[in-house]
Amino acid sequence: MEETIGYTGIALSLLNKADAKPGDRIRITRSDGRVFEGILMPRYAISSKPIIVIKLDNGYNIGVRVDEKTIVEVVKTKEAILREAAAGAPATIPLLEESPPAEERPKVTILGTGGTIASKVEYETGAVKPAFSAKEILEAVPEVGFIADISAKVVMNILSENMRPQYWEKIVDEVAKAIDSGVDGVIVAHGTDTMAYTASALAFAFRGLPVPITFVGAQRSSDRPSSDAAFNLVAAVLVAAKAPFAEVVVVMHGETGDTYALAHRATRVRKMHTSRRDAFQTINGRPLAKIYPFERRITLLESPLRSRGAEELEVANGFEEKVALIKYYPGMEPEIIDFLVDKGYKGIVLEGTGLGHVGEWLTESIKRAVDAGVAVVMTSQTLFGRVNMNVYTTGRKLLQAGVIPADDMLPEVAFVKLSWILSRASDLNEVRRLFKLNLAGEITPRHTIDLYPRWPH
Amino acid sequence: MEETIGYTGIALSLLNKADAKPGDRIRITRSDGRVFEGILMPRYAISSKPIIVIKLDNGYNIGVRVDEKTIVEVVKTKEAILREAAAGAPATIPLLEESPPAEERPKVTILGTGGTIASKVEYETGAVKPAFSAKEILEAVPEVGFIADISAKVVMNILSENMRPQYWEKIVDEVAKAIDSGVDGVIVAHGTDTMAYTASALAFAFRGLPVPITFVGAQRSSDRPSSDAAFNLVAAVLVAAKAPFAEVVVVMHGETGDTYALAHRATRVRKMHTSRRDAFQTINGRPLAKIYPFERRITLLESPLRSRGAEELEVANGFEEKVALIKYYPGMEPEIIDFLVDKGYKGIVLEGTGLGHVGEWLTESIKRAVDAGVAVVMTSQTLFGRVNMNVYTTGRKLLQAGVIPADDMLPEVAFVKLSWILSRASDLNEVRRLFKLNLAGEITPRHTIDLYPRWPH
Repeated sequence: MEETIGYTGIALSLLNKADAKPGDRIRITRSDGRVFEGILMPRYAISSKPIIVIKLDNGYNIGVRVDEKTIVEVVKTKEAILREAAAGAPATIPLLEESPPAEERPKVTILGTGGTIASKVEYETGAVKPAFSAKEILEAVPEVGFIADISAKVVMNILSENMRPQYWEKIVDEVAKAIDSGVDGVIVAHGTDTMAYTASALAFAFRGLPVPITFVGAQRSSDRPSSDAAFNLVAAVLVAAKAPFAEVVVVMHGETGDTYALAHRATRVRKMHTSRRDAFQTINGRPLAKIYPFERRITLLESPLRSRGAEELEVANGFEEKVALIKYYPGMEPEIIDFLVDKGYKGIVLEGTGLGHVGEWLTESIKRAVDAGVAVVMTSQTLFGRVNMNVYTTGRKLLQAGVIPADDMLPEVAFVKLSWILSRASDLNEVRRLFKLNLAGEITPRHTIDLYPRWPH
Repeated sequence: MEETIGYTGIALSLLNKADAKPGDRIRITRSDGRVFEGILMPRYAISSKPIIVIKLDNGYNIGVRVDEKTIVEVVKTKEAILREAAAGAPATIPLLEESPPAEERPKVTILGTGGTIASKVEYETGAVKPAFSAKEILEAVPEVGFIADISAKVVMNILSENMRPQYWEKIVDEVAKAIDSGVDGVIVAHGTDTMAYTASALAFAFRGLPVPITFVGAQRSSDRPSSDAAFNLVAAVLVAAKAPFAEVVVVMHGETGDTYALAHRATRVRKMHTSRRDAFQTINGRPLAKIYPFERRITLLESPLRSRGAEELEVANGFEEKVALIKYYPGMEPEIIDFLVDKGYKGIVLEGTGLGHVGEWLTESIKRAVDAGVAVVMTSQTLFGRVNMNVYTTGRKLLQAGVIPADDMLPEVAFVKLSWILSRASDLNEVRRLFKLNLAGEITPRHTIDLYPRWPH
């Protein structure tokens, strides 16, 4: 029973009796009269609790507590479900409309890069580690086969905290290949930790995108009853297959329930919570669209920068690795700036305070950096709002020293943008000129008062 | 006419004709029939617009457009207003109740440290620079004289981006002196850029506080019609004089209107916007109280950690300056950690990704730092949520390397806390033990789902 791995005790014996394997549709009838039906999920948690995890038809996983009197039956085997999915039949997912035949379905490529959306528990340490291939994800969420004709490829398999600019370049290459092959949309499955950084890297690397590039991840691994992996993936496939815009977006849960996902513009999104399913939020703007996966519906909230179209795709790949993001704190010593200059860094993005300030004792080192040809950019650690270095003396002196204000860009996006610019320009005047352009929606010219969140008070 | 400085053209000639000086209560009758009454404010903006700025009785400044047909009259001179305020009379502020005699009013000390709440436009550059003393602030906002018996002292006069741990120590000393003198509350007027850092420093430095310590600032300088200085100061005086809690709090506008201010616990507050008046918000918690300045009303939103009382005040002053706050970004090189260790830093607070991660290539340098006796703490750049380094392999390896997880502390607060701890403990086990204690409300054991803001979608 290799495939029911993770189950123990009474749960394992019930599954064995029914000959149920992960991926089968099963019905659980409990002695209290309650009946649960859904796809049997593998269970990776090392726990002896008598629980069987199934994926319900609404895409949500639940753990059903069982005992000796519980009856488990297989309603449809995994093989039968996949056969029907491949044939485009509505199969057992009542909430989805009937699928068109394969040749009429939009073509979507899923590129796997690793992360929780493709993870399982690592037995030796009990921690979660990436494991599934993109193909396995597809098998686990057969609904997406009804929306689009899916192809999948594992590009790399890393936790996203280990992402770095040279890997962004590889992802750009693979996405470009997928687009060249004529698909209607590309999905990048990515760990959530640095997903926003990678997504904005792609937003700068592509010009004239003909189709959407959709980043998707999961905050909770698919072996957990509360996993958001399936819901997010269905939403991402909908966007890749059908959204009217051709931008780089991040698609993740929009609230804690399973009502809607959001498509955030890559250059405006930030992971704002360590663990919530609605961790990703648009800062200084509004998300591009709401996606209702169960209704297969997309509602635009903002005007897209680009619509789908056959414009010539231009790929400007390349990211300078010698760029640092430095957050200012009270008392920060100039020696940190000096060190970066001495080490040959070509760009420094400062995350200053308020409107774009740092302690005045740093001005000299910053001036020295600029004089040495290092591009120094100012953002704000407040995240919301816009730097304005003309209001206070501190700001004006920094401008005189040659600091480039980053307008209302997120610090992380300014970092990615500078890395991208420095791989194609080195003259500081040219770097400054490029940096001030709104290249991929990273600058929002006007903020309305309602863009700020409503805080709990 | 030195005192009407800033006014030019028609506005200046109207004011001269009426012999109106800043601080006088004036009435402006326009040719369109509209009448405005309020305190004449000095105008520091270098602008030739025909505008006279007055402070209305609701505490709000407006700019009134004038022309040749406008009539300006002095209703009450500044001297008369101050005389009445000193006598405790209700004077010209109809929205405030009658003031008790001076000897019955609570005693509040305002310590000025600089910042926008005490600023004016610098003529040579046109930028805003600190200038007013705390006493001058008091004269500009006579309302506070009705709430409390105010004493004021300028402790320093710096823009808050120039604040540093050694200045925190000076402020701690001055606040301790004020408390020793028997006041009912202390106000620290502070620039907003790093106000949250300084406030949390004081939260760690004082044990057994008998009275509230209230930080207050302004997002817009008092010469601007939209200044929040007066509103915030009145709210801060109310808290210092009358709030039931004895904690360190930040009191600032609660929304964009003039309805209420919020008292945020010092260890949970963050400046979240570059320019909005409601920039300060509580993260991973709820503000301690709402303050309605015009109704002189305080509503508690959370249980205070401490109530007012005569417990013995204990001051643990001292902050280690060799502590760095380092934000992780994709591709960050270990050389930055190595550099800090080589430079003799005693503490490093990492602002990692997600649940508390950094690229695996940093682990070795972090281990080297810990082995060298450097305290390394992990926080999350998501700001919301709690680090949990047991979920993924990356986190577990960092824990094995000796990294101290900061629970749900803000990165900035973890930085201040580590600086405070390292000035009184050097043994890493003792540092770790102290760091994990909830010393000043910086750890919130349980997060309810409604603590996350409502985002605009």
